[in-house]
Amino acid sequence: MPTYQAPLRDFRFVLHELLQVGKYQNLPAFAEAPPDIIDAVLEEGAKVCEEVIFPLNQSGDEEGCHFENGEVRTPQGFKEAFELYRQGGWIGLSSDPEYGGQGLPQVLGTAMTEMMCSANLSFETYGGLTSGAALAIYSHGTEDQKRQYLPPMYGGQWTGTMNLTESHCGTDLGLMRTKAEPQADGSYRITGTKIFITGGEHDMVENIIHLVLARIPGGPSGIGGVSLFIVPKFLVNDDGTLGQRNGVLCGSIEKKMGIKASSTCVMNFDDAEGYLLGEPHKGMRAMFTMMNAARLGVGLQGLSLAEVSYQSAVTYANDRLQGRSLAGIQAPDKAADPIIVHPDVRRMLMQMKAFTEGARAFGLWIGLNIDFLSGHPDAEMREEAEALLAVSTPVLKAYFTDSGFEATNIGMQCYGGHGYIREWGMEQFVRDSRIAQLYEGANGIQALDLVGRKLPAHMGRNLRAFFHPVDRFIQENMADPGVGNLAMALAKSFGRLQSATAWIAENGLTDPEQAGAAATDYARLFGLVALGFMWAQMAKVARETLDAGTDDAAFYEAKLVTARFYMERVLPETSSLLSKLTAGKESLMALDAEAFARAQ
Amino acid sequence: MPTYQAPLRDFRFVLHELLQVGKYQNLPAFAEAPPDIIDAVLEEGAKVCEEVIFPLNQSGDEEGCHFENGEVRTPQGFKEAFELYRQGGWIGLSSDPEYGGQGLPQVLGTAMTEMMCSANLSFETYGGLTSGAALAIYSHGTEDQKRQYLPPMYGGQWTGTMNLTESHCGTDLGLMRTKAEPQADGSYRITGTKIFITGGEHDMVENIIHLVLARIPGGPSGIGGVSLFIVPKFLVNDDGTLGQRNGVLCGSIEKKMGIKASSTCVMNFDDAEGYLLGEPHKGMRAMFTMMNAARLGVGLQGLSLAEVSYQSAVTYANDRLQGRSLAGIQAPDKAADPIIVHPDVRRMLMQMKAFTEGARAFGLWIGLNIDFLSGHPDAEMREEAEALLAVSTPVLKAYFTDSGFEATNIGMQCYGGHGYIREWGMEQFVRDSRIAQLYEGANGIQALDLVGRKLPAHMGRNLRAFFHPVDRFIQENMADPGVGNLAMALAKSFGRLQSATAWIAENGLTDPEQAGAAATDYARLFGLVALGFMWAQMAKVARETLDAGTDDAAFYEAKLVTARFYMERVLPETSSLLSKLTAGKESLMALDAEAFARAQ
Repeated sequence: MPTYQAPLRDFRFVLHELLQVGKYQNLPAFAEAPPDIIDAVLEEGAKVCEEVIFPLNQSGDEEGCHFENGEVRTPQGFKEAFELYRQGGWIGLSSDPEYGGQGLPQVLGTAMTEMMCSANLSFETYGGLTSGAALAIYSHGTEDQKRQYLPPMYGGQWTGTMNLTESHCGTDLGLMRTKAEPQADGSYRITGTKIFITGGEHDMVENIIHLVLARIPGGPSGIGGVSLFIVPKFLVNDDGTLGQRNGVLCGSIEKKMGIKASSTCVMNFDDAEGYLLGEPHKGMRAMFTMMNAARLGVGLQGLSLAEVSYQSAVTYANDRLQGRSLAGIQAPDKAADPIIVHPDVRRMLMQMKAFTEGARAFGLWIGLNIDFLSGHPDAEMREEAEALLAVSTPVLKAYFTDSGFEATNIGMQCYGGHGYIREWGMEQFVRDSRIAQLYEGANGIQALDLVGRKLPAHMGRNLRAFFHPVDRFIQENMADPGVGNLAMALAKSFGRLQSATAWIAENGLTDPEQAGAAATDYARLFGLVALGFMWAQMAKVARETLDAGTDDAAFYEAKLVTARFYMERVLPETSSLLSKLTAGKESLMALDAEAFARAQ
Repeated sequence: MPTYQAPLRDFRFVLHELLQVGKYQNLPAFAEAPPDIIDAVLEEGAKVCEEVIFPLNQSGDEEGCHFENGEVRTPQGFKEAFELYRQGGWIGLSSDPEYGGQGLPQVLGTAMTEMMCSANLSFETYGGLTSGAALAIYSHGTEDQKRQYLPPMYGGQWTGTMNLTESHCGTDLGLMRTKAEPQADGSYRITGTKIFITGGEHDMVENIIHLVLARIPGGPSGIGGVSLFIVPKFLVNDDGTLGQRNGVLCGSIEKKMGIKASSTCVMNFDDAEGYLLGEPHKGMRAMFTMMNAARLGVGLQGLSLAEVSYQSAVTYANDRLQGRSLAGIQAPDKAADPIIVHPDVRRMLMQMKAFTEGARAFGLWIGLNIDFLSGHPDAEMREEAEALLAVSTPVLKAYFTDSGFEATNIGMQCYGGHGYIREWGMEQFVRDSRIAQLYEGANGIQALDLVGRKLPAHMGRNLRAFFHPVDRFIQENMADPGVGNLAMALAKSFGRLQSATAWIAENGLTDPEQAGAAATDYARLFGLVALGFMWAQMAKVARETLDAGTDDAAFYEAKLVTARFYMERVLPETSSLLSKLTAGKESLMALDAEAFARAQ
């Protein structure tokens, strides 16, 4: 059976020692969240995740969701667990207290999301989508809409959904067919079918607020003619009580590879009453608010599943006895040594460890920048945070989910044949983590967003928000006797990232297919350097702490070893990525479409 | 729904144009298999795979195997399909006619295995294990044993199994506990429990021949005290008819991530009658005969699932309309362009294509060398074939299955969110292909076999059997105007493989942990160069054919484009692998075992 303990020690290291969030008490979200409160909230969150939600992970996968007559029943225990989770105020943790949120920092919400997804990804999706939908209402709704919908969503009495995809359009939302007919009273009547709607129907709450993209007839064609609507499952009376059932019904749920306890619904809207959210035909703008937050959340899922898989693999590697150490017998009293003595098992565990801790640091840094964006008193800091978020969102989503999937597979590999057997739980992490590479924009789309939209925007300002701090760190530390060699290793890969950027700028401008052909390798190169930057900084903190003296030396020494592993054993991939992408598009684009089937 | 068409055109290219198997009519297996017969057999095999076996793949996964009272029922249609398959003589295709085999070349059997596993991996395992078990009896059995067991196994009236693993020992077979008590009549009584027994019980044939590793009491401890036994499900009378039920019973079947239609059994041996196969305490030697063949077979599974996933992805990429080409609208009559116009989709398809065609060539070359080993009149050729097989078996098993898994994931990624939905079939290929990295020795074990056993053996003779032909090709072709640039790209990566080999020889000799730490990266580097070698050779054939004139130019031009893609976009990974492995073991081995859990 897999094990999970929230990585509280590591959260404290990143939040207090690396990011030093205590410095930001001048931001509203931090005003009432000094370090000891942050730690206390994380400890409470850890308990909920470890004791309430994690125990339902494997049983939820085995049982899955049930569909009958338009209704979805979640697996045993989910409803009760959701009630506890809801009561704890976790859904509105980082939301505006004006509408019932807890008003705590986003960086804390980031840590909580990581723990939630480690404990039970299926379970997390219901609350995760609710936060996303609430954010869109918060950002684009009228004051009345906010007062009506946000408190019960932040409080988890109601959940929310995002309705974008139709069977013939996922990536290309301009092909959308769902219609919204304006009514005399200012409302709309929505008709159409949406697919892949996470939490579109379930039995854990009394109402579900669907955000639905649809076309108002007569508007522009393509993506510029799409508007966003609020469509509640039960209409809401003025006093907040529930009125009649709306014309939206779940047609079926999908049988999926994983996240089986998360209901993935086909939603049929049949003359359903809906209310415009934001401006007509500007639905994509409102949706993007939600999608950017969701992309960061999905990125974290990769980290989360890597973490729980890692922990389970460490336990197994210490317990499982096979063979003897190449350096001589380590456990003479046992029939064989634990497999953690073998270098190849170490390689696997170190790879997972280097990813999870590096990703945690990067994710929390990005989370902190969301706090800066929404509440920093200095306009320049807000602008810089916005730029950093713009460029980091697709990188984090694609790199974390690709690496998370790799990590869950490594964790499974540590178990040998047992990893393939369901009762051990390791293959569930593989199946569950696989979705994160696909939803919220498949990773190829993230890469295109990075090279096609984020890089060229604002004359490269987004890029500078990441490049400048990396460059500064390298300049300041390359001669440092403690971490100079790590800074030099980072510099080498950072140089490759700069070369790749220059190559794309030069070739992509005249031929967008060159940028498209380079996109995925570029995004991965970016992600590798981003985590390298975090590892170099973490090593510096660790070195300084050790030099100053600490009674937790083993923790900091492990950081130094893992940083070295990252530089020596992970980061070198940047060299082959640069070679690949600068080879250009020719060998990709030369074949006729028919030629792909010619071997048969 | 996935599609599968046997890649007959590509088989003909590799067999006749690249390997020129027509030259080997002096070998017994080829004497009655001139090129036209080979093609006819492949066409027949393709029909069985496409029409009989493939249609049961998805339904078999959905239904799975049923277990009740010690009996296993295979999914609907399996029994009837097995009867057809059996009657076609496919199981004994490459086996000795003296005992009922078809006597056709191994290289043909290799192609057939590829098709079978593409069509339905679960189904293939029953026949595949039978071939493996029969091979062990053929190689180590007495004449009586061969006459008794081989004809019904080659004929598929009976199937076979391999019983190695026990719950506490998989990799470390020296820990084995199953016992074999000698009886007065020369037989043995076997008692113990084995796990992960593929096809240990099922309803498709009348008898199952278990090969079981067990200890004869009083023998040496450890791996040198293990013997191999034949334990039939039903005892066999002297006239070949079936006698009484033996004391071997299936205790349960595993719930697995994939290959759900393949029964994975816990087998309880309770005083079961068994017969020594080969010499006492030399069971591992006999088992290795079977395991080497099985490892090549498992390697092919990676290729097979990549192939069927690739074909389905190509179909989808041509059908699915999303977005417009970056080079301008390609399908003005449609609402959007097919996604095959997008460079990032091309990148995915080309990666799959480069792997499957390169792996097919390498696999068939290795298959041909099995024919050389067993039947070449020239002793030197036999010796060289043996050396090449020794070094290639772990490379093929690890590299093909790792890359096969990557490829099935790429195929799934081409489908976007639909890839995650079971009915589309793409996620089954991912789940099914995942087992191949684990069974028959997890891939880390393959890598250790390569660096620890195969490299140092015979003063490097194994290695030379691969290095010499690569070196020769490079020398002969680096100045060639047609393929010189490909030969140069190969030379660069081959140089890295040589450097890595030298590094391991130098560092691994004094410190085996250095070799252990380098093993996985080294095996992958080896695999990349091996396929690079095949691509360079295929390109040469294609170039010469085009220069000579052909009415199938598109096929050969696609080979040239794909060879270029391989050199530019796949092979460069060798550079980062060399960096990683020469970094040495330090960052892997520095942490205490306890330190891995310290972040919590």
